[in-house]
Amino acid sequence: MTLTPPAAALAGDRLVSVGTPSLLIDLDAFEANLRDTAAFVAGHGVALRPHAKAHKSSAVALRQIEAGAVGICCQKLSEAYPFAAAGVRDIYVTNEFVGKDKLSMATELASHVQLSVCVDAMPQVIALGEAAASAGVAIDVLPEIDVGQNRCGVTTHDALLELIDAIAAHSSLHFAGLQAYHGGAQHIAGWAARKDTASRAAERAGSFVHALEARGVRCARVTGGGTGTFEFDVASGVYTEVQPGSYAIMDGEYGGIEWHGAVRPRNSLFVLSTIMSATRPGMAVCDVGLKGLAVDAGLPREVTWTASEEGPPLAYIAANDEHGKLEIVGSPDADTSHLLGQRVLVTPGHCDPTVNLYDQYVCFRGDRVEAIWPIDARGLSR
Amino acid sequence: MTLTPPAAALAGDRLVSVGTPSLLIDLDAFEANLRDTAAFVAGHGVALRPHAKAHKSSAVALRQIEAGAVGICCQKLSEAYPFAAAGVRDIYVTNEFVGKDKLSMATELASHVQLSVCVDAMPQVIALGEAAASAGVAIDVLPEIDVGQNRCGVTTHDALLELIDAIAAHSSLHFAGLQAYHGGAQHIAGWAARKDTASRAAERAGSFVHALEARGVRCARVTGGGTGTFEFDVASGVYTEVQPGSYAIMDGEYGGIEWHGAVRPRNSLFVLSTIMSATRPGMAVCDVGLKGLAVDAGLPREVTWTASEEGPPLAYIAANDEHGKLEIVGSPDADTSHLLGQRVLVTPGHCDPTVNLYDQYVCFRGDRVEAIWPIDARGLSR
Repeated sequence: MTLTPPAAALAGDRLVSVGTPSLLIDLDAFEANLRDTAAFVAGHGVALRPHAKAHKSSAVALRQIEAGAVGICCQKLSEAYPFAAAGVRDIYVTNEFVGKDKLSMATELASHVQLSVCVDAMPQVIALGEAAASAGVAIDVLPEIDVGQNRCGVTTHDALLELIDAIAAHSSLHFAGLQAYHGGAQHIAGWAARKDTASRAAERAGSFVHALEARGVRCARVTGGGTGTFEFDVASGVYTEVQPGSYAIMDGEYGGIEWHGAVRPRNSLFVLSTIMSATRPGMAVCDVGLKGLAVDAGLPREVTWTASEEGPPLAYIAANDEHGKLEIVGSPDADTSHLLGQRVLVTPGHCDPTVNLYDQYVCFRGDRVEAIWPIDARGLSR
Repeated sequence: MTLTPPAAALAGDRLVSVGTPSLLIDLDAFEANLRDTAAFVAGHGVALRPHAKAHKSSAVALRQIEAGAVGICCQKLSEAYPFAAAGVRDIYVTNEFVGKDKLSMATELASHVQLSVCVDAMPQVIALGEAAASAGVAIDVLPEIDVGQNRCGVTTHDALLELIDAIAAHSSLHFAGLQAYHGGAQHIAGWAARKDTASRAAERAGSFVHALEARGVRCARVTGGGTGTFEFDVASGVYTEVQPGSYAIMDGEYGGIEWHGAVRPRNSLFVLSTIMSATRPGMAVCDVGLKGLAVDAGLPREVTWTASEEGPPLAYIAANDEHGKLEIVGSPDADTSHLLGQRVLVTPGHCDPTVNLYDQYVCFRGDRVEAIWPIDARGLSR
């Protein structure tokens, strides 16, 4: 039996008729983020290579490249496939990988795109060198150095030099530079503290670069930085490329940190949700919970009425699998029965894992759906 | 360009060659859960209607029905489609819904399956009655009563009677009984405290049933209960049907509560993950984070080596988007570089939102992949 759910939205629909829950992109804010960030980064003579792990959509990646990006980052090899299929020609997998299935993906991707990857241990280099040689492909390799994240990456100059020597020993591999990302710096709330941490990460990256220069090894790329620090990284004199991902769509967590610099991306990502039960004073229940909102960064901090509706101020106070509990702020005794069927915009706390719950973006401008963009890398975590 | 990632696993593969991260089902434990739970519930003369929101897979639902289930529950209308398409004939949507798109789905589903749905407000009943009449379909309706969850559902006998009168006024609708689910009771850690809470929920449900009987209205079904309370609910004399979902696969949260009764489902759900970086003493990094493990119920509490590997005891101490940080328990200074490429089994903290991150189950028995089951309702949240 062919029996599938109807489309949640089609281009041209009014926003009020979009099925819920749906993941929305406000195109005006999104386009401004792409344009302003590209201009800001280019103004510092640094390359912009947006991280596609945040948006997971080739439609977004192609627009980023059109706006000046040199290529994209992915975090996983399987994730890179839809971007390669859509015509992205330069893909950097900013993460280590191990295993035969991963090596097969790497060599297959390298036969279609300019592929660069990360390593932080000798067995990864040796396995990759052998796989690339036997597949007849060339792969750019960037050892990861730890610049404060305390997660992956080498921690000493000697370990880095050993990796670079091993890369040089494989004709199918090419040493392309250094991966120097500090994830923990991105969400530091205070602007000055974040700037300070970014500056220490850049200094640490610089010390590796200088150690290599002292051995006659030049780093063509020093790449890292995210949405929270790229404004500092581009001015560091160390980074040649930055990797912000969230900047295109943003989220509650990034919206909640201090921004004082010349660039501040705006939130363009929302979950549209309907109030489907309202039987209690001061409370209502909407139709999006844990399966439509990642809560690792806390519950959504902002819930607003859609432009076509109005109502009392709301707070999202609890997420169950398919339910969101909303509280009427300051009115615990208010009758809420008239709110049944009203629709709200919820700002996700953390964009990356929230986006990964949806198959499409419903892109709107004003009160009109302008486009549907598939989230074609959704779930590709290998 | 046709360029898609290779399959993570095929039936017949050895478990050691499965791509990671992958979501696994241990078929021995899974089959025992289906068999033992069905026998236990049937032994009390109560109907078993497993909740498909936990497993999201028609392959699982068909096996549950084969093991004696009367049908399934879904939480959303769109979620019901793949089950209807796969041949499940009796589907109960245990949740309220509002909106034209939802009514269209309800009437379409009702033309294919025996559909029952929940309501807790007059506008839902009126809209559903009109939609069903104009589509020429019949829908069973179960008002939800609040039995302690403080979320959806009517709270007074009068409100319930008003809904039942409205249902009776629509010839396309049929009053089929009461939805009486207490989600908050399911994970109470202490067995006695959980039993007590379940007992109070059943008493509250019973008081609604008696109020209806006093008006000459008979409740053919009183349905509720989950994995944490069904052992009590079946013996309550109030519930005619129970709705456990997680029991088939289980998770860390359910594994962590006290079980003293005659039935205790075993964990059959794991995420298989590879250690892809190990550059620091006492620590390793595996390839599954927030995009492969829901953390709303906390970080995974159990990480074990696969049967074919061994190593030191591990704890999962932090989840980033694509990384899991593992600590070597009790050995902060241990060299871990030899762990690179080793594989671990991670028990998810909360099964429902974790399952919703994957497109398939890799089902294994011993060291062999026996089947791949699509998670065909993944992401269907409308």
